[in-house]
Amino acid sequence: MSQTVTGFEVHDIRFPTSEQLDGSDAMNPDPDYSAAYVVLRTTDGAEGHGFCFTIGRGNEVTAAAIEALRPYVVGRPAPRTAADLAALYFELTHDSQLRWLGPEKGVMHMAAGAVVNAAWDLAAGYAGKPVWEFLAGMTPEELVSLVDFRYLSDALTPDEALAILRAARPGRDERAARLRERGYPAYTTSPGWLGYADSKLVGLAQQAVADGFEQIKLKVGGDLDDDVRRMKLAREAVGPDIRIAVDANQRWDVAEAVRWMAALAPYEPHWIEEPTSPDDILGHAAIRAGQPVKVATGEHVANRVVFKQLLQAGAVDFVQIDAARVAGVNENVAILLLAAKFGVPVCPHAGGVGLCELVQHLSMFDFVAVSGSWDDRVIEYVDHLHEHFADPVVIVSGRYSAPTAPGFSARMLPASIAEHSYPDGPVWQARRTTEEISS
Amino acid sequence: MSQTVTGFEVHDIRFPTSEQLDGSDAMNPDPDYSAAYVVLRTTDGAEGHGFCFTIGRGNEVTAAAIEALRPYVVGRPAPRTAADLAALYFELTHDSQLRWLGPEKGVMHMAAGAVVNAAWDLAAGYAGKPVWEFLAGMTPEELVSLVDFRYLSDALTPDEALAILRAARPGRDERAARLRERGYPAYTTSPGWLGYADSKLVGLAQQAVADGFEQIKLKVGGDLDDDVRRMKLAREAVGPDIRIAVDANQRWDVAEAVRWMAALAPYEPHWIEEPTSPDDILGHAAIRAGQPVKVATGEHVANRVVFKQLLQAGAVDFVQIDAARVAGVNENVAILLLAAKFGVPVCPHAGGVGLCELVQHLSMFDFVAVSGSWDDRVIEYVDHLHEHFADPVVIVSGRYSAPTAPGFSARMLPASIAEHSYPDGPVWQARRTTEEISS
Repeated sequence: MSQTVTGFEVHDIRFPTSEQLDGSDAMNPDPDYSAAYVVLRTTDGAEGHGFCFTIGRGNEVTAAAIEALRPYVVGRPAPRTAADLAALYFELTHDSQLRWLGPEKGVMHMAAGAVVNAAWDLAAGYAGKPVWEFLAGMTPEELVSLVDFRYLSDALTPDEALAILRAARPGRDERAARLRERGYPAYTTSPGWLGYADSKLVGLAQQAVADGFEQIKLKVGGDLDDDVRRMKLAREAVGPDIRIAVDANQRWDVAEAVRWMAALAPYEPHWIEEPTSPDDILGHAAIRAGQPVKVATGEHVANRVVFKQLLQAGAVDFVQIDAARVAGVNENVAILLLAAKFGVPVCPHAGGVGLCELVQHLSMFDFVAVSGSWDDRVIEYVDHLHEHFADPVVIVSGRYSAPTAPGFSARMLPASIAEHSYPDGPVWQARRTTEEISS
Repeated sequence: MSQTVTGFEVHDIRFPTSEQLDGSDAMNPDPDYSAAYVVLRTTDGAEGHGFCFTIGRGNEVTAAAIEALRPYVVGRPAPRTAADLAALYFELTHDSQLRWLGPEKGVMHMAAGAVVNAAWDLAAGYAGKPVWEFLAGMTPEELVSLVDFRYLSDALTPDEALAILRAARPGRDERAARLRERGYPAYTTSPGWLGYADSKLVGLAQQAVADGFEQIKLKVGGDLDDDVRRMKLAREAVGPDIRIAVDANQRWDVAEAVRWMAALAPYEPHWIEEPTSPDDILGHAAIRAGQPVKVATGEHVANRVVFKQLLQAGAVDFVQIDAARVAGVNENVAILLLAAKFGVPVCPHAGGVGLCELVQHLSMFDFVAVSGSWDDRVIEYVDHLHEHFADPVVIVSGRYSAPTAPGFSARMLPASIAEHSYPDGPVWQARRTTEEISS
C-alpha cells in the first residue's frame, strides 16, 4: 500500500522560440522558452511531473536548484493526501539553509514550486482525478492545512480562510457541472507580440474573435507612437465589444506608466498589466490612482507576502497568479484565498511552455470551491508548444475545457524532452551545426 | 595598457560553524557559513575576488548561478573606471533571459552581486586604493552613472542624487582624515546568539563593553519568557548607557511582533531588527506604528525597489544594507542615495563570512561622500572567520579602522579556500569520516 519515491530525474529543456519572435515583448526580445523539469518516480511505477518555466539562459541554474531538493523527496512515502502535500511544501520552504537563498523568492523558490507541483501531479494521479477536481474535493479544513499563514495573519487568518471555503460549499457540484459543460473563459495573447508586423497583428486579432475569444492582449512599452497605432488597429479590427488588455512587462517607472496609459486610454484598454517592477507595491498603487485603466500584475510576483500587500494597498484590479513562479499549488491556494478575501478577481498568467496546462486547474478550483465565480475572470491562452504535452489544453470557442485526465496536465512527451534537452539534444546540436556553418 | 579578464574561477566554500551554534537565531538554528566565491584573473596577473554569502545547503546553486555569468566577463577588458563598472553591472542585471530568474532577487541577483563586487575589487586594486577611497574619489557625475534609476524615479531622480552628492563634497577630505584617525563606529552581535547559555551571554556582553563597544545585539524570537530574561540580564550587565538592539530574524507576523516588542520595551531595546518578512513593507510600517521600539531591516531585502518602498512607507528607522545580497557596489550606491534622500541612517548588516570585510567600505564611503555623517550609524561586527582573509577587518575600541590595502578586502587566503572547499576539501572529508565512525 505505502509506496516510496525512489526516482528524481531533472531535465534542462529548451525550445528555440527566439527564432520566430514568438513571445517577444518590451523586456524580453528573444526568449527561448525553457523548462527546468523534474520527474518523481515511485516504487509502484507512478510518476509526478513538475517544472519551472524560464526563457533560456540560466535554466541550468534552476535545474541545479531542483537538484538541491532531491534529498527531501527521495525515500519519502509517495504523497497522496492534503497532509502529505502540506508536509512536503512546509519542509521545502522552511528549510533554514535553503531559505537563505530567497527567502521565498527567485530560483530556489521556483524550484520548490516545481517539486511541490510534481507531488500534486503524483497525488492527483493516485486519486484518479485532475488536480482541479482533486482540490475541489478536499474539505475546507484540508484546504486550509495546505496554506502557510506565516506573514499573512494581518490580512487573512485560518478562520477567515475556513469561512471563505465554507461559504463556497453550497453550489460546488452545480458549478463543477457547469464547468464541465461550458469550460472556463480564456483570452488570447497570440496576436499581440511586439515583434509582429501590423498586418499579422490585425489578422490574428480578427482570427481570435472568429475563434470565440472575447478578450485579446497586446504587448506595449517599446515605443509610444507604435503602441498608439497598434492599439488603434486592434480596436478597429475587433470592434468595441471585445476587451483588449495591454501588457508592458515591467517596462516603466510610475510617471511613465501614467503618461503612457493616458495616451492609450481613448482606445479603452481593459487592463494594464505589469506596468512597473513586480516588487513595487506602492508604485502599482500610484499607477492605479494616476490613470483611468485598471491594473493587473502577478506573473513575476515572488510570493504570497507580496500578493498580500498588493491587495492591502489597493494596488491591483486583477491578481495574475502563475502556476510555476511561487512554491506550487500550496502557495497558490493561499493567493486565491487572499484574492477572495479582498474580492479581487484572479486572471492567471499563462503561455510560455506548459503554464496553460498547469494554471487552468487553479482557476477551475477557484471557480468551484473558493471565489465561486467566473465573472470578470479569464485565463490567458497562448497557442505555443502545447503539442509537447501528453494532456494538452483544449480550447473550444474561447474557453478552456475542463481537464478530465488524472494529474496536473504537466507531462511533457518523452520525445519532446529528449529532442529539446540542452545542450545535447538533437534540436540544439543541429542549431549549433547551423551556426558553425553560417559563421 | 588594456588588459583582459581571462580567468573566472568559482569555488563552493563552507565552514562547519553549526558545530558551535555560532550564528544560531530564531530562524536559523544551525548555519554552516558559506561562500560561493569567484576569482577574476586578468592578462597582467591582477585579480578580483567576490562572493555570495549563504548558510550551507544550496551554496552549490549559488555557485552555478555565478558560473552562468562567466560568458559576460571572460574576454572583457579589465574594468578600471566608473564607466566600466556601470557597463558590467547593467549588462548582468538587464540580461532579459537571466532577469526572468528573479527579476533582481534571489540566487541570480546575489550571483550578479558577487561578480560586480569582484570587478570592484579588481578596479580598486588597479587604482591602488581601498574601495571606500576609490568610490569617495569619484565625481558626483561618475557616482550617479553607477546607479540604475529604473523603478526609482518616483522617489529619487538622477538630478536629486547629484544634488545629494554635490552637497557632500565640502568636507570630504576632512571626514576622510577623521575616519583614518578614529575609525567608524561598530556594534557587536557576538554575545547574543540564541544558542548561548545565559552565563555566556552576560560574560560576552560585559566583555563587549570592556572592549569599547557602545552597542550590542541580542537574537530574540524563540520564546518570549526567555527573551525577557535574556534582555533583562543583558541590560543589567551593560548598564543604561549601552544600546542593546534585538533581532528577530523574520520570526513574527505583525501582531506578534507588536506584542513581543511591547514586552521587551521596558528594557529599552535600541531597535527591533527583521521583525517580519523582508518582503513585507506594509507589515514593517504597521509594526513601527504599533509599538515604541525603532525598526530596522535590510539584510534580506532583495533589491533597491524594496528599499525604496520601505523608505516611502516610513517603515524603517534604520536601513541595513548587506554587501552581498543585492547586485554589488552599484546597487548599494543606489540604496545609500535613497537613504540619504529620506534622511534615514544606514547601519549595515555584517557577520557571516567576509561580510564585515566588504561592507565597511560602503559605510565609510557613505560617511565621506554621501550622508556625510556617522551619527546614529554603526556597522555590525561579529568576531567569526576573519582569520581566513588576507586583509581582515581591524576593530579598535569598538570601531572599524579604515582599510588601507587596495581593493575590497574580499580575498580569502588560498589555504582557507582549499581546506573548506565543499564537498572535497579536507575539512569536509574529515567531517564525513567522523560521521561514518560515529554512525
